[in-house]
Amino acid sequence: MKTYLDCIPCFFRQTLEASRIAGADEVIQKKIINRVAGVIPDFPLESSPPEMARIIHGIIKEETGNDDPYLEIKKQSTSEALKIYHVLKEKVKNSDDPLLTALEMAIMGNIIDYGVFSIINIEDELNKILSNEDRTIRNASASAFDYNSFRTLLAAAGTVMYLGDNAGETVFDRILMEEIRTFNPATRISFVVKGSPIINDAVYSDAIEAGIDSVAEVVSSGSNAPGTVLKYCTREFIDAYYSADIVISKGQGNFEALSEPGRDIIFLFLAKCPVIARDFGCSVGDINLFYKKIYHPPV
Amino acid sequence: MKTYLDCIPCFFRQTLEASRIAGADEVIQKKIINRVAGVIPDFPLESSPPEMARIIHGIIKEETGNDDPYLEIKKQSTSEALKIYHVLKEKVKNSDDPLLTALEMAIMGNIIDYGVFSIINIEDELNKILSNEDRTIRNASASAFDYNSFRTLLAAAGTVMYLGDNAGETVFDRILMEEIRTFNPATRISFVVKGSPIINDAVYSDAIEAGIDSVAEVVSSGSNAPGTVLKYCTREFIDAYYSADIVISKGQGNFEALSEPGRDIIFLFLAKCPVIARDFGCSVGDINLFYKKIYHPPV
Repeated sequence: MKTYLDCIPCFFRQTLEASRIAGADEVIQKKIINRVAGVIPDFPLESSPPEMARIIHGIIKEETGNDDPYLEIKKQSTSEALKIYHVLKEKVKNSDDPLLTALEMAIMGNIIDYGVFSIINIEDELNKILSNEDRTIRNASASAFDYNSFRTLLAAAGTVMYLGDNAGETVFDRILMEEIRTFNPATRISFVVKGSPIINDAVYSDAIEAGIDSVAEVVSSGSNAPGTVLKYCTREFIDAYYSADIVISKGQGNFEALSEPGRDIIFLFLAKCPVIARDFGCSVGDINLFYKKIYHPPV
Repeated sequence: MKTYLDCIPCFFRQTLEASRIAGADEVIQKKIINRVAGVIPDFPLESSPPEMARIIHGIIKEETGNDDPYLEIKKQSTSEALKIYHVLKEKVKNSDDPLLTALEMAIMGNIIDYGVFSIINIEDELNKILSNEDRTIRNASASAFDYNSFRTLLAAAGTVMYLGDNAGETVFDRILMEEIRTFNPATRISFVVKGSPIINDAVYSDAIEAGIDSVAEVVSSGSNAPGTVLKYCTREFIDAYYSADIVISKGQGNFEALSEPGRDIIFLFLAKCPVIARDFGCSVGDINLFYKKIYHPPV
Protein backbone atom coordinates (compact mmCIF):
# COMPACT_ATOMS: atom_id res chain seq x y z
CA MET A 1 0.00 0.00 0.00
CA LYS A 2 1.26 3.47 -0.83
CA THR A 3 1.63 6.05 1.88
CA TYR A 4 -1.33 8.41 1.98
CA LEU A 5 -1.01 12.04 3.02
CA ASP A 6 -3.27 11.17 5.97
CA CYS A 7 -0.50 8.88 7.24
CA ILE A 8 1.77 11.88 7.83
CA PRO A 9 0.07 13.31 10.97
CA CYS A 10 0.02 9.73 12.28
CA PHE A 11 3.78 9.39 11.65
CA PHE A 12 4.35 12.34 13.99
CA ARG A 13 2.03 10.87 16.62
CA GLN A 14 3.94 7.58 16.43
CA THR A 15 7.26 9.45 16.57
CA LEU A 16 6.30 11.22 19.76
CA GLU A 17 4.84 8.17 21.48
CA ALA A 18 7.71 5.88 20.56
CA SER A 19 10.27 8.53 21.61
CA ARG A 20 8.66 8.61 25.04
CA ILE A 21 8.56 4.83 25.32
CA ALA A 22 12.26 4.83 24.37
CA GLY A 23 12.94 7.15 27.30
CA ALA A 24 13.71 10.38 25.40
CA ASP A 25 13.38 13.61 27.41
CA GLU A 26 11.57 16.61 25.88
CA VAL A 27 14.73 17.99 24.25
CA ILE A 28 15.52 14.67 22.57
CA GLN A 29 11.83 14.21 21.64
CA LYS A 30 11.95 17.55 19.81
CA LYS A 31 15.24 16.65 18.14
CA ILE A 32 13.69 13.38 16.91
CA ILE A 33 10.60 15.22 15.63
CA ASN A 34 12.84 17.70 13.81
CA ARG A 35 14.73 14.85 12.12
CA VAL A 36 11.48 13.14 11.09
CA ALA A 37 10.20 16.49 9.73
CA GLY A 38 13.41 16.66 7.71
CA VAL A 39 12.73 13.27 6.11
CA ILE A 40 9.12 14.00 5.09
CA PRO A 41 9.86 16.08 1.94
CA ASP A 42 12.06 13.35 0.46
CA PHE A 43 10.02 10.29 1.46
CA PRO A 44 8.36 8.90 -1.70
CA LEU A 45 4.65 8.34 -1.17
CA GLU A 46 4.89 5.29 -3.42
CA SER A 47 6.69 3.57 -0.53
CA SER A 48 4.60 1.80 2.08
CA PRO A 49 3.97 3.16 5.60
CA PRO A 50 6.15 0.46 7.23
CA GLU A 51 9.10 1.88 5.27
CA MET A 52 8.57 5.28 6.89
CA ALA A 53 8.08 3.61 10.28
CA ARG A 54 11.45 1.89 9.77
CA ILE A 55 13.10 5.29 9.25
CA ILE A 56 11.31 6.86 12.23
CA HIS A 57 12.18 4.08 14.65
CA GLY A 58 15.75 4.05 13.33
CA ILE A 59 16.04 7.75 14.23
CA ILE A 60 14.58 7.08 17.68
CA LYS A 61 17.08 4.28 18.30
CA GLU A 62 19.97 6.52 17.21
CA GLU A 63 18.92 9.47 19.33
CA THR A 64 18.08 7.48 22.47
CA GLY A 65 20.63 4.66 22.17
CA ASN A 66 17.75 2.31 23.04
CA ASP A 67 17.77 -0.56 20.56
CA ASP A 68 14.62 -2.29 21.81
CA PRO A 69 12.28 0.25 23.45
CA TYR A 70 9.32 -2.14 23.42
CA LEU A 71 11.15 -5.08 25.05
CA GLU A 72 9.23 -4.98 28.34
CA ILE A 73 5.93 -4.29 26.59
CA LYS A 74 6.49 -7.31 24.35
CA LYS A 75 7.35 -9.56 27.29
CA GLN A 76 4.26 -8.43 29.17
CA SER A 77 2.01 -8.92 26.13
CA THR A 78 3.26 -12.47 25.62
CA SER A 79 2.98 -13.31 29.28
CA GLU A 80 -0.60 -11.97 29.57
CA ALA A 81 -1.68 -13.74 26.40
CA LEU A 82 -0.14 -17.02 27.62
CA LYS A 83 -2.21 -16.75 30.81
CA ILE A 84 -5.38 -17.14 28.75
CA TYR A 85 -3.97 -19.73 26.33
CA HIS A 86 -5.96 -22.59 27.88
CA VAL A 87 -9.18 -20.58 28.00
CA LEU A 88 -8.77 -19.72 24.32
CA LYS A 89 -8.07 -23.37 23.51
CA GLU A 90 -11.29 -24.39 25.29
CA LYS A 91 -13.28 -21.87 23.28
CA VAL A 92 -11.80 -23.24 20.08
CA LYS A 93 -12.36 -26.87 21.09
CA ASN A 94 -16.00 -26.27 22.05
CA SER A 95 -16.91 -24.33 18.91
CA ASP A 96 -18.76 -25.78 15.92
CA ASP A 97 -15.86 -24.96 13.64
CA PRO A 98 -12.58 -24.88 15.58
CA LEU A 99 -10.51 -23.74 12.59
CA LEU A 100 -12.83 -20.78 11.95
CA THR A 101 -12.91 -19.81 15.63
CA ALA A 102 -9.12 -19.97 15.90
CA LEU A 103 -8.87 -17.91 12.72
CA GLU A 104 -11.23 -15.21 13.97
CA MET A 105 -9.48 -15.04 17.33
CA ALA A 106 -6.08 -14.81 15.64
CA ILE A 107 -7.24 -11.82 13.62
CA MET A 108 -8.73 -10.22 16.73
CA GLY A 109 -5.38 -10.76 18.48
CA ASN A 110 -4.02 -8.30 15.93
CA ILE A 111 -5.31 -5.56 18.28
CA ILE A 112 -2.03 -5.83 20.22
CA ASP A 113 -0.27 -3.22 18.10
CA TYR A 114 1.74 -0.39 19.61
CA GLY A 115 2.35 1.22 16.22
CA VAL A 116 -1.29 2.10 15.62
CA PHE A 117 -2.63 2.40 19.16
CA SER A 118 -1.14 4.76 21.71
CA ILE A 119 -1.79 2.87 24.86
CA ILE A 120 -3.11 -0.63 25.12
CA ASN A 121 -4.33 -2.18 28.32
CA ILE A 122 -3.40 -5.67 27.32
CA GLU A 123 -5.55 -7.32 29.99
CA ASP A 124 -8.61 -5.32 28.94
CA GLU A 125 -8.10 -6.18 25.29
CA LEU A 126 -7.69 -9.88 26.05
CA ASN A 127 -10.79 -9.83 28.23
CA LYS A 128 -12.75 -8.24 25.39
CA ILE A 129 -11.65 -10.98 23.01
CA LEU A 130 -12.58 -13.64 25.58
CA SER A 131 -15.99 -12.18 26.28
CA ASN A 132 -16.73 -11.38 22.63
CA GLU A 133 -17.10 -7.76 23.73
CA ASP A 134 -14.53 -6.65 21.21
CA ARG A 135 -15.04 -4.02 18.57
CA THR A 136 -14.27 -6.26 15.66
CA ILE A 137 -16.76 -7.69 13.20
CA ARG A 138 -16.13 -10.00 10.33
CA ASN A 139 -15.98 -8.09 7.07
CA ALA A 140 -19.42 -8.28 5.49
CA SER A 141 -17.93 -8.68 2.04
CA ALA A 142 -17.55 -12.36 1.12
CA SER A 143 -14.40 -11.68 -0.89
CA ALA A 144 -12.81 -10.17 2.21
CA PHE A 145 -13.62 -13.14 4.39
CA ASP A 146 -12.90 -15.96 2.01
CA TYR A 147 -12.91 -18.83 4.47
CA ASN A 148 -13.80 -21.38 1.79
CA SER A 149 -10.65 -20.66 -0.19
CA PHE A 150 -8.65 -20.73 3.03
CA ARG A 151 -9.87 -24.27 3.84
CA THR A 152 -9.42 -25.52 0.29
CA LEU A 153 -5.87 -24.21 0.07
CA LEU A 154 -4.92 -25.56 3.49
CA ALA A 155 -6.26 -29.01 2.73
CA ALA A 156 -3.76 -29.35 -0.12
CA ALA A 157 -0.78 -27.51 1.38
CA GLY A 158 2.47 -29.27 2.17
CA THR A 159 4.19 -26.09 3.36
CA VAL A 160 2.69 -22.99 4.96
CA MET A 161 4.65 -19.82 5.62
CA TYR A 162 2.97 -17.70 8.32
CA LEU A 163 4.24 -14.10 8.47
CA GLY A 164 3.93 -13.06 12.12
CA ASP A 165 3.14 -9.61 13.42
CA ASN A 166 3.20 -8.47 17.06
CA ALA A 167 4.42 -10.09 20.27
CA GLY A 168 1.52 -11.39 22.37
CA GLU A 169 -0.55 -11.76 19.22
CA THR A 170 1.84 -14.68 18.62
CA VAL A 171 -0.08 -16.71 21.22
CA PHE A 172 -3.20 -16.37 19.07
CA ASP A 173 -1.15 -17.24 16.00
CA ARG A 174 0.08 -20.35 17.80
CA ILE A 175 -3.49 -21.49 18.45
CA LEU A 176 -4.43 -20.92 14.81
CA MET A 177 -1.36 -22.86 13.65
CA GLU A 178 -2.26 -25.69 16.02
CA GLU A 179 -5.71 -25.84 14.41
CA ILE A 180 -4.16 -25.72 10.96
CA ARG A 181 -2.06 -28.78 11.86
CA THR A 182 -5.13 -30.55 13.26
CA PHE A 183 -6.98 -29.76 10.05
CA ASN A 184 -4.10 -30.95 7.87
CA PRO A 185 -1.52 -32.91 9.87
CA ALA A 186 0.72 -33.27 6.80
CA THR A 187 1.38 -29.52 6.68
CA ARG A 188 4.70 -28.10 7.84
CA ILE A 189 4.58 -24.48 9.00
CA SER A 190 7.31 -21.85 9.21
CA PHE A 191 6.55 -18.83 11.39
CA VAL A 192 8.33 -15.68 10.26
CA VAL A 193 9.59 -13.03 12.67
CA LYS A 194 11.36 -9.72 12.10
CA GLY A 195 15.13 -9.63 11.83
CA SER A 196 15.63 -7.03 14.58
CA PRO A 197 13.41 -5.19 17.08
CA ILE A 198 10.92 -2.76 15.54
CA ILE A 199 8.04 -1.42 17.63
CA ASN A 200 6.37 -4.43 19.32
CA ASP A 201 6.75 -6.74 16.34
CA ALA A 202 7.79 -10.25 17.30
CA VAL A 203 11.44 -11.20 16.90
CA TYR A 204 12.84 -14.73 17.36
CA SER A 205 12.86 -14.67 21.19
CA ASP A 206 9.27 -13.37 21.33
CA ALA A 207 8.07 -16.28 19.18
CA ILE A 208 9.94 -18.79 21.35
CA GLU A 209 8.44 -17.23 24.52
CA ALA A 210 4.98 -17.71 23.02
CA GLY A 211 5.74 -21.39 22.43
CA ILE A 212 5.54 -21.12 18.66
CA ASP A 213 8.38 -23.62 18.23
CA SER A 214 6.07 -26.40 19.42
CA VAL A 215 3.99 -26.03 16.26
CA ALA A 216 6.17 -24.31 13.65
CA GLU A 217 9.74 -23.62 12.71
CA VAL A 218 10.58 -20.03 13.69
CA VAL A 219 12.52 -18.18 10.97
CA SER A 220 13.57 -14.59 10.47
CA SER A 221 12.72 -12.54 7.40
CA GLY A 222 15.60 -10.20 8.11
CA SER A 223 13.23 -7.23 7.75
CA ASN A 224 13.74 -4.41 10.24
CA ALA A 225 10.56 -2.65 9.13
CA PRO A 226 7.23 -3.27 10.92
CA GLY A 227 6.06 -5.30 7.95
CA THR A 228 7.64 -7.79 5.54
CA VAL A 229 9.21 -5.29 3.12
CA LEU A 230 10.82 -7.71 0.68
CA LYS A 231 13.73 -5.43 -0.22
CA TYR A 232 14.95 -5.57 3.39
CA CYS A 233 14.59 -9.37 3.66
CA THR A 234 17.33 -11.96 3.34
CA ARG A 235 17.91 -13.99 0.21
CA GLU A 236 17.07 -17.25 2.06
CA PHE A 237 13.80 -15.81 3.28
CA ILE A 238 12.81 -14.63 -0.19
CA ASP A 239 13.53 -18.06 -1.66
CA ALA A 240 11.38 -19.71 1.01
CA TYR A 241 8.66 -17.08 0.50
CA TYR A 242 8.33 -17.87 -3.19
CA SER A 243 8.52 -21.64 -2.72
CA ALA A 244 5.96 -22.11 0.11
CA ASP A 245 2.65 -23.66 -0.96
CA ILE A 246 0.74 -21.04 1.00
CA VAL A 247 1.78 -17.72 2.53
CA ILE A 248 -0.44 -16.41 5.33
CA SER A 249 0.30 -12.77 6.07
CA LYS A 250 -0.78 -11.53 9.48
CA GLY A 251 -1.54 -7.95 10.40
CA GLN A 252 -1.87 -4.49 8.92
CA GLY A 253 1.88 -3.85 8.60
CA ASN A 254 2.40 -6.95 6.45
CA PHE A 255 -0.67 -6.07 4.37
CA GLU A 256 0.73 -2.59 3.76
CA ALA A 257 4.19 -3.93 2.96
CA LEU A 258 3.03 -6.72 0.62
CA SER A 259 0.41 -5.03 -1.52
CA GLU A 260 2.50 -6.09 -4.53
CA PRO A 261 3.22 -9.55 -3.14
CA GLY A 262 4.64 -11.20 -6.30
CA ARG A 263 2.79 -14.39 -5.36
CA ASP A 264 -0.62 -15.58 -4.11
CA ILE A 265 -1.09 -14.69 -0.48
CA ILE A 266 -3.72 -14.92 2.25
CA PHE A 267 -3.98 -11.74 4.28
CA LEU A 268 -5.45 -11.91 7.78
CA PHE A 269 -5.79 -8.50 9.35
CA LEU A 270 -7.82 -6.22 11.50
CA ALA A 271 -8.42 -2.84 9.81
CA LYS A 272 -7.16 -0.49 12.50
CA CYS A 273 -7.17 2.93 10.88
CA PRO A 274 -9.40 4.88 8.49
CA VAL A 275 -6.68 5.05 5.83
CA ILE A 276 -6.33 1.29 5.43
CA ALA A 277 -10.09 0.82 5.73
CA ARG A 278 -10.60 3.22 2.82
CA ASP A 279 -7.76 1.71 0.79
CA PHE A 280 -9.08 -1.83 1.23
CA GLY A 281 -12.76 -0.95 1.19
CA CYS A 282 -13.94 -1.97 4.64
CA SER A 283 -14.78 -0.37 7.99
CA VAL A 284 -12.38 0.31 10.85
CA GLY A 285 -12.64 -2.69 13.19
CA ASP A 286 -13.41 -5.21 10.44
CA ILE A 287 -11.57 -8.53 10.50
CA ASN A 288 -10.50 -9.55 7.01
CA LEU A 289 -9.40 -12.78 5.39
CA PHE A 290 -8.40 -11.69 1.91
CA TYR A 291 -7.06 -14.17 -0.63
CA LYS A 292 -5.03 -12.14 -3.10
CA LYS A 293 -4.27 -14.01 -6.28
CA ILE A 294 -1.75 -12.61 -8.72
CA TYR A 295 -2.13 -13.08 -12.44
CA HIS A 296 -0.90 -16.49 -13.52
CA PRO A 297 -0.08 -16.58 -17.23
CA PRO A 298 -1.46 -19.65 -18.98
CA VAL A 299 1.18 -22.39 -19.24
CA MET B 1 0.00 28.78 26.36
CA LYS B 2 3.21 27.32 25.03
CA THR B 3 3.13 24.83 22.20
CA TYR B 4 3.41 21.27 23.42
CA LEU B 5 5.08 18.52 21.42
CA ASP B 6 1.66 16.85 21.26
CA CYS B 7 0.46 19.83 19.22
CA ILE B 8 2.81 18.89 16.36
CA PRO B 9 0.91 15.85 14.99
CA CYS B 10 -2.24 17.99 15.23
CA PHE B 11 -0.56 20.77 13.20
CA PHE B 12 -0.10 18.28 10.36
CA ARG B 13 -3.69 17.10 10.64
CA GLN B 14 -4.86 20.72 10.45
CA THR B 15 -2.52 21.38 7.54
CA LEU B 16 -3.95 18.54 5.51
CA GLU B 17 -7.59 19.29 6.29
CA ALA B 18 -7.28 23.00 5.64
CA SER B 19 -5.35 22.38 2.40
CA ARG B 20 -8.24 20.25 1.18
CA ILE B 21 -10.82 22.81 2.19
CA ALA B 22 -8.76 25.41 0.32
CA GLY B 23 -9.04 23.27 -2.80
CA ALA B 24 -5.44 22.02 -3.05
CA ASP B 25 -4.90 18.89 -5.14
CA GLU B 26 -2.70 16.07 -3.79
CA VAL B 27 0.48 17.53 -5.27
CA ILE B 28 -0.13 20.92 -3.67
CA GLN B 29 -1.21 19.26 -0.41
CA LYS B 30 2.16 17.47 -0.28
CA LYS B 31 4.00 20.70 -1.12
CA ILE B 32 2.20 22.45 1.73
CA ILE B 33 3.01 19.60 4.14
CA ASN B 34 6.66 19.76 3.09
CA ARG B 35 6.76 23.51 3.79
CA VAL B 36 5.14 23.03 7.21
CA ALA B 37 7.65 20.25 7.96
CA GLY B 38 10.38 22.74 7.08
CA VAL B 39 9.07 25.25 9.63
CA ILE B 40 8.82 22.77 12.56
CA PRO B 41 12.53 22.70 13.53
CA ASP B 42 12.69 26.50 13.85
CA PHE B 43 9.32 27.12 15.50
CA PRO B 44 9.94 28.06 19.13
CA LEU B 45 7.79 25.99 21.48
CA GLU B 46 7.50 29.05 23.74
CA SER B 47 5.17 30.53 21.10
CA SER B 48 1.49 29.69 21.32
CA PRO B 49 -0.28 27.23 18.99
CA PRO B 50 -2.23 30.03 17.22
CA GLU B 51 1.13 31.46 16.09
CA MET B 52 1.94 28.18 14.36
CA ALA B 53 -1.59 28.02 12.93
CA ARG B 54 -1.01 31.51 11.49
CA ILE B 55 2.11 30.24 9.70
CA ILE B 56 0.38 27.08 8.45
CA HIS B 57 -2.66 28.88 7.09
CA GLY B 58 -0.40 31.53 5.55
CA ILE B 59 1.42 28.79 3.62
CA ILE B 60 -1.92 27.30 2.51
CA LYS B 61 -3.11 30.68 1.25
CA GLU B 62 0.15 31.21 -0.66
CA GLU B 63 0.14 27.77 -2.26
CA THR B 64 -3.55 27.72 -3.19
CA GLY B 65 -4.13 31.41 -3.86
CA ASN B 66 -7.30 31.03 -1.79
CA ASP B 67 -7.42 33.87 0.73
CA ASP B 68 -10.56 32.77 2.54
CA PRO B 69 -11.00 28.98 2.28
CA TYR B 70 -13.62 28.87 5.01
CA LEU B 71 -15.86 31.60 3.57
CA GLU B 72 -18.76 29.32 2.65
CA ILE B 73 -18.43 27.30 5.87
CA LYS B 74 -18.58 30.52 7.89
CA LYS B 75 -21.65 31.76 6.03
CA GLN B 76 -23.41 28.43 6.51
CA SER B 77 -22.53 28.34 10.23
CA THR B 78 -23.92 31.82 10.77
CA SER B 79 -27.04 31.12 8.77
CA GLU B 80 -27.78 27.84 10.61
CA ALA B 81 -27.16 29.42 14.01
CA LEU B 82 -29.43 32.36 13.13
CA LYS B 83 -32.23 29.90 12.34
CA ILE B 84 -32.31 28.84 15.99
CA TYR B 85 -31.74 32.32 17.42
CA HIS B 86 -35.35 32.67 18.60
CA VAL B 87 -35.42 29.19 20.13
CA LEU B 88 -32.24 29.96 22.03
CA LYS B 89 -33.70 33.29 23.18
CA GLU B 90 -36.79 31.48 24.51
CA LYS B 91 -34.62 29.05 26.45
CA VAL B 92 -32.73 31.96 27.98
CA LYS B 93 -35.90 33.90 28.78
CA ASN B 94 -37.58 30.92 30.45
CA SER B 95 -34.60 29.95 32.57
CA ASP B 96 -34.20 30.77 36.26
CA ASP B 97 -31.03 32.70 35.55
CA PRO B 98 -31.02 34.05 31.98
CA LEU B 99 -27.48 35.47 32.24
CA LEU B 100 -26.09 32.10 33.35
CA THR B 101 -28.00 30.20 30.67
CA ALA B 102 -26.83 32.59 27.95
CA LEU B 103 -23.28 32.25 29.29
CA GLU B 104 -23.34 28.46 29.26
CA MET B 105 -24.84 28.37 25.78
CA ALA B 106 -22.24 30.82 24.50
CA ILE B 107 -19.45 28.57 25.74
CA MET B 108 -21.13 25.54 24.22
CA GLY B 109 -21.36 27.45 20.92
CA ASN B 110 -17.56 27.33 20.98
CA ILE B 111 -17.92 23.83 19.47
CA ILE B 112 -18.15 25.46 16.01
CA ASP B 113 -14.39 25.33 15.45
CA TYR B 114 -12.86 24.07 12.22
CA GLY B 115 -9.34 24.36 13.61
CA VAL B 116 -9.79 21.65 16.21
CA PHE B 117 -12.50 19.51 14.67
CA SER B 118 -12.18 17.93 11.25
CA ILE B 119 -15.75 17.90 10.16
CA ILE B 120 -18.61 19.53 11.92
CA ASN B 121 -22.22 18.88 11.10
CA ILE B 122 -23.38 22.29 12.17
CA GLU B 123 -27.05 21.31 12.36
CA ASP B 124 -26.26 18.27 14.54
CA GLU B 125 -24.14 20.36 16.89
CA LEU B 126 -26.81 23.03 17.21
CA ASN B 127 -29.45 20.39 17.88
CA LYS B 128 -27.29 18.92 20.62
CA ILE B 129 -26.97 22.32 22.27
CA LEU B 130 -30.72 22.86 21.99
CA SER B 131 -31.59 19.46 23.43
CA ASN B 132 -28.89 19.61 26.12
CA GLU B 133 -27.50 16.43 24.57
CA ASP B 134 -24.13 18.01 24.15
CA ARG B 135 -20.88 16.63 25.46
CA THR B 136 -20.04 19.62 27.55
CA ILE B 137 -20.22 19.86 31.31
CA ARG B 138 -19.49 22.81 33.51
CA ASN B 139 -16.01 22.53 35.00
CA ALA B 140 -16.39 21.03 38.45
CA SER B 141 -13.75 23.34 39.85
CA ALA B 142 -15.30 26.51 41.29
CA SER B 143 -12.29 28.60 40.27
CA ALA B 144 -12.84 27.50 36.67
CA PHE B 145 -16.49 28.46 36.68
CA ASP B 146 -16.36 31.70 38.60
CA TYR B 147 -19.84 33.00 37.81
CA ASN B 148 -19.97 35.12 40.97
CA SER B 149 -16.96 37.18 39.92
CA PHE B 150 -18.42 37.46 36.44
CA ARG B 151 -21.66 38.99 37.79
CA THR B 152 -19.86 41.27 40.21
CA LEU B 153 -17.52 42.60 37.54
CA LEU B 154 -20.31 43.08 35.02
CA ALA B 155 -22.50 44.98 37.49
CA ALA B 156 -19.81 47.65 37.78
CA ALA B 157 -18.52 47.71 34.19
CA GLY B 158 -18.89 50.76 31.98
CA THR B 159 -17.04 49.15 29.05
CA VAL B 160 -16.76 45.50 28.08
CA MET B 161 -14.47 44.21 25.36
CA TYR B 162 -15.61 40.82 24.07
CA LEU B 163 -12.97 38.96 22.03
CA GLY B 164 -14.89 36.88 19.52
CA ASP B 165 -13.92 33.51 18.14
CA ASN B 166 -15.64 31.60 15.34
CA ALA B 167 -18.36 32.49 12.83
CA GLY B 168 -21.71 30.98 13.82
CA GLU B 169 -20.62 30.94 17.44
CA THR B 170 -21.12 34.69 17.08
CA VAL B 171 -24.90 34.16 17.25
CA PHE B 172 -24.44 32.65 20.72
CA ASP B 173 -22.11 35.53 21.63
CA ARG B 174 -24.80 37.96 20.53
CA ILE B 175 -27.33 36.36 22.86
CA LEU B 176 -24.88 36.51 25.76
CA MET B 177 -24.13 40.17 25.02
CA GLU B 178 -27.85 40.90 24.89
CA GLU B 179 -28.20 39.36 28.36
CA ILE B 180 -25.18 41.33 29.58
CA ARG B 181 -26.90 44.54 28.45
CA THR B 182 -30.14 43.48 30.13
CA PHE B 183 -28.20 42.77 33.30
CA ASN B 184 -26.35 46.10 33.14
CA PRO B 185 -27.93 48.47 30.63
CA ALA B 186 -25.22 51.08 31.26
CA THR B 187 -22.53 48.83 29.77
CA ARG B 188 -21.13 49.51 26.31
CA ILE B 189 -19.70 46.47 24.54
CA SER B 190 -17.14 46.20 21.76
CA PHE B 191 -17.00 42.87 19.93
CA VAL B 192 -13.58 42.06 18.52
CA VAL B 193 -13.06 40.17 15.27
CA LYS B 194 -9.91 39.08 13.45
CA GLY B 195 -8.21 41.45 11.03
CA SER B 196 -8.25 39.03 8.10
CA PRO B 197 -9.64 35.56 7.37
CA ILE B 198 -8.06 32.74 9.38
CA ILE B 199 -9.74 29.32 9.56
CA ASN B 200 -13.41 29.94 10.46
CA ASP B 201 -12.69 32.76 12.89
CA ALA B 202 -15.14 35.63 12.58
CA VAL B 203 -14.07 38.70 10.64
CA TYR B 204 -16.04 41.95 10.42
CA SER B 205 -18.58 40.75 7.84
CA ASP B 206 -19.27 37.53 9.81
CA ALA B 207 -20.10 39.54 12.92
CA ILE B 208 -22.41 41.82 10.96
CA GLU B 209 -24.17 38.81 9.39
CA ALA B 210 -24.79 37.46 12.90
CA GLY B 211 -26.42 40.77 13.87
CA ILE B 212 -23.76 41.62 16.45
CA ASP B 213 -23.94 45.32 15.55
CA SER B 214 -27.37 45.51 17.16
CA VAL B 215 -25.82 44.95 20.58
CA ALA B 216 -22.12 45.88 20.31
CA GLU B 217 -19.67 47.88 18.29
CA VAL B 218 -17.76 45.53 15.99
CA VAL B 219 -14.02 46.26 15.93
CA SER B 220 -11.00 44.46 14.48
CA SER B 221 -7.97 43.42 16.49
CA GLY B 222 -5.87 43.31 13.35
CA SER B 223 -4.68 39.81 14.32
CA ASN B 224 -4.39 37.32 11.49
CA ALA B 225 -3.78 34.43 13.88
CA PRO B 226 -6.67 32.25 15.14
CA GLY B 227 -6.39 33.91 18.52
CA THR B 228 -5.70 37.44 19.78
CA VAL B 229 -1.90 37.36 19.58
CA LEU B 230 -1.13 40.87 20.83
CA LYS B 231 2.04 41.31 18.77
CA TYR B 232 -0.03 41.03 15.58
CA CYS B 233 -2.73 43.45 16.77
CA THR B 234 -3.10 47.11 15.88
CA ARG B 235 -2.01 49.94 18.19
CA GLU B 236 -5.63 51.19 18.50
CA PHE B 237 -6.83 47.74 19.48
CA ILE B 238 -4.11 47.34 22.12
CA ASP B 239 -5.00 50.74 23.64
CA ALA B 240 -8.67 49.74 23.81
CA TYR B 241 -7.73 46.32 25.22
CA TYR B 242 -5.86 47.84 28.14
CA SER B 243 -8.46 50.52 28.84
CA ALA B 244 -11.65 48.40 28.84
CA ASP B 245 -13.19 47.79 32.27
CA ILE B 246 -13.61 44.10 31.46
CA VAL B 247 -12.18 41.89 28.76
CA ILE B 248 -14.09 38.70 28.01
CA SER B 249 -12.02 36.31 25.92
CA LYS B 250 -13.96 33.68 24.01
CA GLY B 251 -12.63 30.34 22.86
CA GLN B 252 -9.60 28.11 23.04
CA GLY B 253 -7.52 30.07 20.51
CA ASN B 254 -7.82 33.29 22.50
CA PHE B 255 -7.04 31.41 25.73
CA GLU B 256 -3.89 29.96 24.14
CA ALA B 257 -2.86 33.32 22.71
CA LEU B 258 -3.48 35.33 25.90
CA SER B 259 -1.99 33.15 28.59
CA GLU B 260 0.18 36.17 29.51
CA PRO B 261 -2.64 38.67 29.11
CA GLY B 262 -0.99 41.73 30.74
CA ARG B 263 -4.36 42.57 32.34
CA ASP B 264 -7.25 40.93 34.18
CA ILE B 265 -9.33 38.88 31.82
CA ILE B 266 -12.35 36.56 31.85
CA PHE B 267 -11.82 33.46 29.73
CA LEU B 268 -14.86 31.57 28.45
CA PHE B 269 -13.92 28.42 26.61
CA LEU B 270 -14.70 24.84 25.89
CA ALA B 271 -11.69 22.56 26.41
CA LYS B 272 -11.56 20.84 23.06
CA CYS B 273 -8.33 18.84 23.12
CA PRO B 274 -6.34 16.80 25.65
CA VAL B 275 -3.39 19.19 25.51
CA ILE B 276 -5.34 22.25 26.67
CA ALA B 277 -7.28 20.16 29.19
CA ARG B 278 -4.00 19.01 30.76
CA ASP B 279 -2.48 22.51 30.62
CA PHE B 280 -5.51 24.09 32.28
CA GLY B 281 -6.36 21.20 34.57
CA CYS B 282 -9.79 20.13 33.37
CA SER B 283 -11.36 17.41 31.23
CA VAL B 284 -11.95 17.52 27.48
CA GLY B 285 -15.50 18.80 27.00
CA ASP B 286 -15.53 20.99 30.12
CA ILE B 287 -16.94 24.50 29.81
CA ASN B 288 -14.80 26.98 31.69
CA LEU B 289 -15.30 30.50 33.01
CA PHE B 290 -11.89 31.41 34.30
CA TYR B 291 -11.22 34.83 35.82
CA LYS B 292 -7.49 35.41 35.50
CA LYS B 293 -6.22 38.25 37.66
CA ILE B 294 -2.72 39.55 37.13
CA TYR B 295 -0.65 40.81 40.02
CA HIS B 296 -1.58 44.37 40.90
CA PRO B 297 1.18 46.07 42.88
CA PRO B 298 -0.10 48.00 45.93
CA VAL B 299 -0.58 51.72 45.13
